[in-house]
Amino acid sequence: MHDFKCVGVVGRLEGNAQSIDTLKLLIDYLQGKGVSIVLEEHVSYVLPGHGLSVSSHETLGKVCDLAIVVGGDGSMLTAARALAKHGVPVVGINRGGLGFLTDIAPDELEQRLDDVFSGNYEVEQRFMLEGNICREGGSLHQGQALNDVVLSAGSSGRMIEFELYINDHFVYSQRSNGLIISTPTGSTAYALSGGGPIMHPSLDALVLVPIFPHTLTGRPIVIDGNSKIKIVPGNLHDTHAMVCCDGHLNFTIEGDEVVYVNKMADQLKLIHPLPNSFYETCRRKLHWGSRLAG
Amino acid sequence: MHDFKCVGVVGRLEGNAQSIDTLKLLIDYLQGKGVSIVLEEHVSYVLPGHGLSVSSHETLGKVCDLAIVVGGDGSMLTAARALAKHGVPVVGINRGGLGFLTDIAPDELEQRLDDVFSGNYEVEQRFMLEGNICREGGSLHQGQALNDVVLSAGSSGRMIEFELYINDHFVYSQRSNGLIISTPTGSTAYALSGGGPIMHPSLDALVLVPIFPHTLTGRPIVIDGNSKIKIVPGNLHDTHAMVCCDGHLNFTIEGDEVVYVNKMADQLKLIHPLPNSFYETCRRKLHWGSRLAG
Amino acid sequence: MHDFKCVGVVGRLEGNAQSIDTLKLLIDYLQGKGVSIVLEEHVSYVLPGHGLSVSSHETLGKVCDLAIVVGGDGSMLTAARALAKHGVPVVGINRGGLGFLTDIAPDELEQRLDDVFSGNYEVEQRFMLEGNICREGGSLHQGQALNDVVLSAGSSGRMIEFELYINDHFVYSQRSNGLIISTPTGSTAYALSGGGPIMHPSLDALVLVPIFPHTLTGRPIVIDGNSKIKIVPGNLHDTHAMVCCDGHLNFTIEGDEVVYVNKMADQLKLIHPLPNSFYETCRRKLHWGSRLAG
Amino acid sequence: MHDFKCVGVVGRLEGNAQSIDTLKLLIDYLQGKGVSIVLEEHVSYVLPGHGLSVSSHETLGKVCDLAIVVGGDGSMLTAARALAKHGVPVVGINRGGLGFLTDIAPDELEQRLDDVFSGNYEVEQRFMLEGNICREGGSLHQGQALNDVVLSAGSSGRMIEFELYINDHFVYSQRSNGLIISTPTGSTAYALSGGGPIMHPSLDALVLVPIFPHTLTGRPIVIDGNSKIKIVPGNLHDTHAMVCCDGHLNFTIEGDEVVYVNKMADQLKLIHPLPNSFYETCRRKLHWGSRLAG
Repeated sequence: MHDFKCVGVVGRLEGNAQSIDTLKLLIDYLQGKGVSIVLEEHVSYVLPGHGLSVSSHETLGKVCDLAIVVGGDGSMLTAARALAKHGVPVVGINRGGLGFLTDIAPDELEQRLDDVFSGNYEVEQRFMLEGNICREGGSLHQGQALNDVVLSAGSSGRMIEFELYINDHFVYSQRSNGLIISTPTGSTAYALSGGGPIMHPSLDALVLVPIFPHTLTGRPIVIDGNSKIKIVPGNLHDTHAMVCCDGHLNFTIEGDEVVYVNKMADQLKLIHPLPNSFYETCRRKLHWGSRLAG
Repeated sequence: MHDFKCVGVVGRLEGNAQSIDTLKLLIDYLQGKGVSIVLEEHVSYVLPGHGLSVSSHETLGKVCDLAIVVGGDGSMLTAARALAKHGVPVVGINRGGLGFLTDIAPDELEQRLDDVFSGNYEVEQRFMLEGNICREGGSLHQGQALNDVVLSAGSSGRMIEFELYINDHFVYSQRSNGLIISTPTGSTAYALSGGGPIMHPSLDALVLVPIFPHTLTGRPIVIDGNSKIKIVPGNLHDTHAMVCCDGHLNFTIEGDEVVYVNKMADQLKLIHPLPNSFYETCRRKLHWGSRLAG
Repeated sequence: MHDFKCVGVVGRLEGNAQSIDTLKLLIDYLQGKGVSIVLEEHVSYVLPGHGLSVSSHETLGKVCDLAIVVGGDGSMLTAARALAKHGVPVVGINRGGLGFLTDIAPDELEQRLDDVFSGNYEVEQRFMLEGNICREGGSLHQGQALNDVVLSAGSSGRMIEFELYINDHFVYSQRSNGLIISTPTGSTAYALSGGGPIMHPSLDALVLVPIFPHTLTGRPIVIDGNSKIKIVPGNLHDTHAMVCCDGHLNFTIEGDEVVYVNKMADQLKLIHPLPNSFYETCRRKLHWGSRLAG
Repeated sequence: MHDFKCVGVVGRLEGNAQSIDTLKLLIDYLQGKGVSIVLEEHVSYVLPGHGLSVSSHETLGKVCDLAIVVGGDGSMLTAARALAKHGVPVVGINRGGLGFLTDIAPDELEQRLDDVFSGNYEVEQRFMLEGNICREGGSLHQGQALNDVVLSAGSSGRMIEFELYINDHFVYSQRSNGLIISTPTGSTAYALSGGGPIMHPSLDALVLVPIFPHTLTGRPIVIDGNSKIKIVPGNLHDTHAMVCCDGHLNFTIEGDEVVYVNKMADQLKLIHPLPNSFYETCRRKLHWGSRLAG
């Protein structure tokens, strides 16, 4: 799988000087490798006079056999939602803050991409979620998420009330500010702030984390990754409930609508140069303790 | 203090049949006592043909020497913000859900109000907060709160960034969904959902509870009740930050505005028939364990 | 599988009058069914003059094709450790407090056992853990657990230090009071008190919950149920570290010993009369909200 | 108060080479200042041939007008319990790990002690707790604590049951692994691991943090610092309950004994060179965010 011939470059750089330096370094590197290069539109905007092919995410997903994301985890989330359906593997160069997904540091770009191009990597399949807002059985809106689908009150701090069903089994009714439905990938993101557990990326599971539940017994629940989740909002009075995918797409829910969340058929192929260790990333990000002195 | 001659009746009943029964029972009781009765406007709407005086919160606060709130804790919060400045003591009859503030059950209305009218009660002073949104030293908006002043992103789930100062000492900068600044009274409400401690109502302290902080070390902080709190929002990009008092009043903050929160001069006088035990209320509401068998 | 001919009766009753009544009711019921009855020794002690066969857990596991546990979840844990290896299915009648495992209430004994004897039940496979304390590769002590294997300081409040490895990958070193390694079955028990998530019983996963970790970033981790866990204690100074299985068996660890924890080959066959709903049990135990009014 | 003439040197160094270097540097510094020096016995052991006065904590507390603690927070806790009653102010040089109490870094020893000797410091009064184990009104054992008094099961993981009273008001009965009663000083230590809030050191309050409570509604409670706390253990069966002060002194409790915890009359005088900021220490220890870029 490592014979990459056409490489897409993706990211949201917003004119940040350091990111543009990294981008130029990357393009030099790729030109040195002799591969075809396709810039996603947003990347092309910050590189005037680049002289390279430009395409939308959509087209890029069709023609490239590798996509390189420059940015933070937010850039990777956007790329994942656009590229997963095309099966193109993705690797991330970190120019943002945290970086659980974009795990190549800019100063090791060449060395780590050498690993990728020489086949010294592994591919992780990260499953994704789709959320559907339905009325009378028909889907009105649909969103996709690598991290999480979040139901919440439209205005922060407002309470909503809803019933939760898993595989058609009634679980509970809850008054809260909302509910986070997170993949293992998302378990180190928003769900973690809400008291959810860290889940190993290889786990086929979801965690449901209530947001500021009205009672103290509303706790995170971990369920099988293939579960079908249904949320039936209660009387919302003057509060608007919303569904949000990866913190980006927002849909408002009306009182007679129902939200379904389940695993997507397509998965993100995430490339990690070797050695790849989820725990090593946790140690760096969360200041976990390193080895004890003998 | 217990020679109450003019009693205001306050609440938000919204046509609920049981609440109206309680209201009628209360008015019969008060007429039997021979005291003057003043209905707050919202109460008068649900009692057509009542034949009693009606006034705004404002006037009621001036003419009454006791206010009786029928409703849930939300009704008490509204009453507190309106009545505290007039120094009129308040007692609550519970027609809502939880009821930390409205602690007389409807079926013991007569017995407990007999206690109040015969002087068998205690008065708790509950301090309140005021939040000021200022630009260049001038206050643009002001709100009052018995429970909490909450800074948050206008849309739920969005991150805001701000600096926190206490008594002009820099505390931290934080990325989170917001910050709850709660009185002891509010510590059993929204702040508790966010992982804050329960604070005894007599404590002269505030708790600051971060809402979904970006790092795991953002923890609740308890500080002196007289602290002057200043919040300086960072670059909000396209996110709107908001300040919300007791979950009701909302003010949007612009990038060059600063939020100040501190104790109000006026306090709410909350009447409890005796015996009054905060812990007994906790045991009922939170299912805490009762006495062990000898 | 529902043609049960020889039924073992198991429990730790400790002379509690109500439990003995339930036990007598159960034996009457079983005699009415015409099945062979074998009392486990501890049961036989509280039923003088019973005239029935008596055996150890060991023998009972070999000769019976159904075991009925009378007691609390603690009794079920003991039965599970003794009976899982024999493959005999187990059903629980609750005479203790919580009862996630022993889910038949005494007053519905006849009706629910009728369900069991008529085949109206399902069998849940609950996997179990074994903990091994090893020195130089050889196992010194071994324990089994349905709920959890807990590493802790022998005296409460003392800190221990250890390295954690999962499938030979180094995870972290940690200073804490210990570490809970819990099955889904145990996730509603001790691990829940420590902030762990609730895991659906069908999930093939483990949760690792640090006990009072020294830093705030020590969070519960959910991993695959087949993971091989290795714990290497650091310098214990004058503190004794201990391993405890289901809160019962305790082994002290010396400085040159290593603890391994992994799934057992044998699973507990837990019988639930139908309908069986884990979430319904959660709603009862944790006061989760029931259905909203239409 | 800054005319210090006789300075005690205190610590638990355990032969650590770096600590001994710091100690020697300190003694050189003090000799340069021309003050009398008294070594506490444990310090004298690691400085053979020192030629200085040596005394017990007790005598040192009587003759010195300043005590300098070299070590970690644990050393400061020991010094506090020994010296508070003598009213001798204490300053700490950090040779341990965390260092909320010992806030002078070794490499700034001279500069910061110059501050102290020139009066450029502030004195914080840190209140302390005493725990009394009583039978029939008489005290059997007594311990003192700067951080916390902890009631727990003697063996970790075991449940104990007890009733809690505050100022003779019944609060709750609880099944848990124990209860932490912490001062503001202790709120950044063990209580924090248990989910307690951070309390500003100047606050006159206590926090009670349940250790692994059996129900999810057992939450930290913050109460007035002058509260009288009484704990009545329930039937302990074969479990031993223990009381532990600052993680050191341990007393076992029998079934007919009662534990009282309240504020001590004596306070620790803790010296901080200026500027002194509790929040700055929090930022360093807890990785809180620093000022936002303008």
